[in-house]
Amino acid sequence: MASTNRNLSVVTTGKDDLLLEDREIPTPGRDEVQIAMQRVGICGSDIDFKKHGGIGDYVIKSPLILGHESSGIVSAVGTEVKHLKVGDRVSIEPGIPCRKCKLCKRGRYNLCPDSVVISVPPVDGLLRRYHCHPADFCFKLPDNVSSDEGALMEPLSVAIHACRRAGLSLGDKVLVLGAGPIGLLTLLTSNAMGAAKVAITDIHDNRLSVASKLGASACIKIDESDPQKMAEKIHTTLGWKPDITIECSGVESSFQMGIYATEAGGVFQMVGHGNPTRTLPYFVANTREIDIRGTQRYANIYPIALSMIANGLVDIKPLITHRFSLKESAEAFNTAETCKDNAIKVMIHCDE
Amino acid sequence: MASTNRNLSVVTTGKDDLLLEDREIPTPGRDEVQIAMQRVGICGSDIDFKKHGGIGDYVIKSPLILGHESSGIVSAVGTEVKHLKVGDRVSIEPGIPCRKCKLCKRGRYNLCPDSVVISVPPVDGLLRRYHCHPADFCFKLPDNVSSDEGALMEPLSVAIHACRRAGLSLGDKVLVLGAGPIGLLTLLTSNAMGAAKVAITDIHDNRLSVASKLGASACIKIDESDPQKMAEKIHTTLGWKPDITIECSGVESSFQMGIYATEAGGVFQMVGHGNPTRTLPYFVANTREIDIRGTQRYANIYPIALSMIANGLVDIKPLITHRFSLKESAEAFNTAETCKDNAIKVMIHCDE
Amino acid sequence: MASTNRNLSVVTTGKDDLLLEDREIPTPGRDEVQIAMQRVGICGSDIDFKKHGGIGDYVIKSPLILGHESSGIVSAVGTEVKHLKVGDRVSIEPGIPCRKCKLCKRGRYNLCPDSVVISVPPVDGLLRRYHCHPADFCFKLPDNVSSDEGALMEPLSVAIHACRRAGLSLGDKVLVLGAGPIGLLTLLTSNAMGAAKVAITDIHDNRLSVASKLGASACIKIDESDPQKMAEKIHTTLGWKPDITIECSGVESSFQMGIYATEAGGVFQMVGHGNPTRTLPYFVANTREIDIRGTQRYANIYPIALSMIANGLVDIKPLITHRFSLKESAEAFNTAETCKDNAIKVMIHCDE
Amino acid sequence: MASTNRNLSVVTTGKDDLLLEDREIPTPGRDEVQIAMQRVGICGSDIDFKKHGGIGDYVIKSPLILGHESSGIVSAVGTEVKHLKVGDRVSIEPGIPCRKCKLCKRGRYNLCPDSVVISVPPVDGLLRRYHCHPADFCFKLPDNVSSDEGALMEPLSVAIHACRRAGLSLGDKVLVLGAGPIGLLTLLTSNAMGAAKVAITDIHDNRLSVASKLGASACIKIDESDPQKMAEKIHTTLGWKPDITIECSGVESSFQMGIYATEAGGVFQMVGHGNPTRTLPYFVANTREIDIRGTQRYANIYPIALSMIANGLVDIKPLITHRFSLKESAEAFNTAETCKDNAIKVMIHCDE
Repeated sequence: MASTNRNLSVVTTGKDDLLLEDREIPTPGRDEVQIAMQRVGICGSDIDFKKHGGIGDYVIKSPLILGHESSGIVSAVGTEVKHLKVGDRVSIEPGIPCRKCKLCKRGRYNLCPDSVVISVPPVDGLLRRYHCHPADFCFKLPDNVSSDEGALMEPLSVAIHACRRAGLSLGDKVLVLGAGPIGLLTLLTSNAMGAAKVAITDIHDNRLSVASKLGASACIKIDESDPQKMAEKIHTTLGWKPDITIECSGVESSFQMGIYATEAGGVFQMVGHGNPTRTLPYFVANTREIDIRGTQRYANIYPIALSMIANGLVDIKPLITHRFSLKESAEAFNTAETCKDNAIKVMIHCDE
Repeated sequence: MASTNRNLSVVTTGKDDLLLEDREIPTPGRDEVQIAMQRVGICGSDIDFKKHGGIGDYVIKSPLILGHESSGIVSAVGTEVKHLKVGDRVSIEPGIPCRKCKLCKRGRYNLCPDSVVISVPPVDGLLRRYHCHPADFCFKLPDNVSSDEGALMEPLSVAIHACRRAGLSLGDKVLVLGAGPIGLLTLLTSNAMGAAKVAITDIHDNRLSVASKLGASACIKIDESDPQKMAEKIHTTLGWKPDITIECSGVESSFQMGIYATEAGGVFQMVGHGNPTRTLPYFVANTREIDIRGTQRYANIYPIALSMIANGLVDIKPLITHRFSLKESAEAFNTAETCKDNAIKVMIHCDE
Repeated sequence: MASTNRNLSVVTTGKDDLLLEDREIPTPGRDEVQIAMQRVGICGSDIDFKKHGGIGDYVIKSPLILGHESSGIVSAVGTEVKHLKVGDRVSIEPGIPCRKCKLCKRGRYNLCPDSVVISVPPVDGLLRRYHCHPADFCFKLPDNVSSDEGALMEPLSVAIHACRRAGLSLGDKVLVLGAGPIGLLTLLTSNAMGAAKVAITDIHDNRLSVASKLGASACIKIDESDPQKMAEKIHTTLGWKPDITIECSGVESSFQMGIYATEAGGVFQMVGHGNPTRTLPYFVANTREIDIRGTQRYANIYPIALSMIANGLVDIKPLITHRFSLKESAEAFNTAETCKDNAIKVMIHCDE
Repeated sequence: MASTNRNLSVVTTGKDDLLLEDREIPTPGRDEVQIAMQRVGICGSDIDFKKHGGIGDYVIKSPLILGHESSGIVSAVGTEVKHLKVGDRVSIEPGIPCRKCKLCKRGRYNLCPDSVVISVPPVDGLLRRYHCHPADFCFKLPDNVSSDEGALMEPLSVAIHACRRAGLSLGDKVLVLGAGPIGLLTLLTSNAMGAAKVAITDIHDNRLSVASKLGASACIKIDESDPQKMAEKIHTTLGWKPDITIECSGVESSFQMGIYATEAGGVFQMVGHGNPTRTLPYFVANTREIDIRGTQRYANIYPIALSMIANGLVDIKPLITHRFSLKESAEAFNTAETCKDNAIKVMIHCDE
């Protein structure tokens, strides 16, 4: 355990390395809280930054602290903070917008060009003992929401934002592509929103097996063969066409198959990343009026995510398959990268 | 049991009477199916037509067959009907639009000024042995949906349409006013759509007790005293303000209280009828940008309602408290009118 | 003309009085600009505050500076202001939200319960020589937009917000109730948005005559007789029913008539204030699914309003009928209150 | 002029041929009108069918009458037709949906899988003397709308549908890609809906010159070089980024450039066809939440298109550059195909 006068942090230079470093313990500004970090989940982007040193235009130029799926305990509060006090457990929304630009003012603060996003270079992340954060982006965990669940609010918010962007509503037939953590959370969210059917695809049997236990109507093993034929096969298997398809795999053939599969007038929701370009079955998308929508994190979703857990609408705890202490972060990343022992979500305990 | 060459029907002249009459058995047109009726639930409007001879501009001028919450078995099919066959059990959507006017073409066929609505004068209803109906407004019941549930698709569709018109979505806090059949179905639907909280009000303890069993977050007994104070009391009791308030009681003081109670930027959804005019807390509604929305039956909702039942999202069977044969219709109406023995939904078996 | 070391201001105590007072010249904060005020238009709410000492819950308890429809010249800038410089002419958006609550984050900052609204007690208004304001709520006027027009951005934004809340789009048939400044600006905005028809009503011939010159399809003189019959008369006169009705008069009979007049599936947009309660033709609104929507000022509208003027989409200058210097404010208010000489918009020159 | 007992028609077998054939004069069904055709404009799809024998899955297997942009005079009416009479001039909406499927009932009848679409194989088109059509898809032309304009309702409806699907509203900044007939009509429609700016691109100077006369804010000559750099050049030229980009060229590099060019949170609206697949700058579209939407003809748009012309909102007559008689159809097609003499819209007079 770290002594109280240092702020042990997990740092990468983007050359597939992870270092433990001591940093200053920050003091909260008047609108901020200081948080003693509890849990940080490892996200695919953390792995990409560590391994490849960047994602798209976001490149590590100086050592970066990783981690943004997190919860912690308020350890100090700024002078103007009213809704939080020392000892409150919170979940931390990692993107902090400028609050002044037209996108912020329109409620789409996730698109703010001046936003500061935790763990995206050059902004340090949360795999550390202490962090200071604007209080209005910290959400108090109710007593019946665990700190583990608090850390999962981040990927759950991605899933919820995708489902809401897709306009998912009661009675919709949904196809989720990819049964990784985001795909599985999308499945759970779709059911919580009243989807009539939620089918899910993956190339790995074990992931489909998890999806089945989490309530998928149908689990379909796919491969990267001809996307149009694969879409037809899915129609035959299911006996229905999806009103909404949510792409969580980031794989091009899955993207193509999903557009072929979607019902006329439906929505194809992009979530998963991959190559910067993608070939699209244009004629089909256009003439069937299939809307292709993007997702950039989330906006105004954390309170919804918390209410889902507090009310028992979904149980996300089964996604956590592995746990490590802050000092074991290298092993934690190794487990997450290799999906060792069928890892789904790997959780790091920052207070251990 | 009626002989096969007659069509026993339950008729009113609107003078608080109910008669059993023999009518011709109709022959289906080429796009129609003939249905041997199974179940018809009694709706408040059936009672109003029988007792008062009309609702608003809809007045009984010649004897009218009542009933529109129904299910039956297809007993003959028109030459061009493809998706149904003799023996299929179906739920019947009672409003048949013109299919040609601008409102029909825009997808709001429930507002079609030329629509034919079953059991609204002068169009006969379904409390009878046989009825012919356009096949595309008959929805096949899956094996795991009972004929009782099929008859409840009608009021369930009212509730779903209200929730969708209100824009209800995951994480919303909902206040349902009135715990009669529509209020209870609205409660169930709100939960199925992922509401964070669903509170419900009524003046009767026994109805609130049913609501509690059906999953209300909070059940609040109200009276017709000062609506603004009642709204403040509700805020105190709940600890939150509703994003969406759905008025299912038809009572003016409830309408007023609901607008005072609704959160700024929220929706006040009208469902229940009552007096033709209503006094509105205008300044509050306007300056808080509370949208007040109407509901006229439903459009494009039956398939959603069926999928909810088929998937086990909601259990509506507990709403059926009493059953009678077609010949016992007078007693059935008496039970429904007086809420005898805590009656909620009274079901008539047309095949008995 | 005031000397540079004082800040001449127009103050009321709410007892139908207006005083000229000297105040301190404020210094801009780091995100603020100091503005030498140029034009302030008189709004109905300014008159209500002066005459009656309050509107609804907003009551004058200490002397209040009036005025919020304004333009000025930047005279000093805070250290962090980037998009404005000394000498820029600006239009001032008078409501400043907290930027942190859920309504702000959702883009509905006009509903922020903690917002500071210029000229609404206890917050001073803009009828003065100098004012400091958050820079991101000051909008630079293009060279081809006059300072007069800049001051009219405020009521124009009310009209635009109403038209957008109403969902007004190309081909809609619109009925505007009331031909005062807001009604006339709503007429101009409706035409700029591509309305197929825009009819307008009023009780005064001279206002209808102005509306006719500004492009109304039809101008209908109404009275406060039976609202339902008046609605039928309007249908007969026009030969069509409005998809959207926008109530700008604040009169109860107009409100009622508007709901009767609106097409099924349409929108009744509330704008004008009046008594805190209002009787509503409930049955008609509910069964025709007429949505009744509120408006509280505007959010994200000033840039749109400016683009309309800069592009010559509308000409709002004809609405300015009278002009006075700051020291003549009492006469200016008298003219506005009594609609003397067919006054529509009375403009005060703060720099004279 | 043809004698009254024959129905001269322009037929292709899809092998780049055009034949004049005599056909039977059809008799209207009870819900139909018989129309003496007046004007038919040549559409790009007519040229594709003639030249290549098909578009995508739609292939000519037996001789096909071309043409679907049309107007005519009612020459006979079915027994149940009420809103039209002999002598009325009408514009003909060419797609006739089934009216019974879920997409029809939801108001998206343009996506009906069972729809009959005039001039799409195997359904004959309107380049003939007489045609019978469902009366509710024939729209009476007001006296101030010419038969030429009536024929242009079809491409104008494509443009309007695209602008409405894109959510275009007052104050939006719009970029139209391609200045052919649809691009030019999209420009006109965008202005009619209150766009703040409408820039347009093309590779041909003469088309940009027409666009400039029709009211484009900026006309930008592009080439097929690097799409990302071209997008940056457009940003520099304009000084703004489009909220909405509408792709009317069907060219892949234009499609890519358009996505790079669109503002975060904006819409990229697909209209123009081309190759069945298209490579998409995926990462940009996803992380900026740019919605990519399709258009399939239009639904519920003809009345809007007509109102625009009747009210003088747009002047589409300048688009008609050439005219031919029915018997000169071969020359008409040659002119349209080769854009001879800067042809934009070529009109055939079916009554000559």
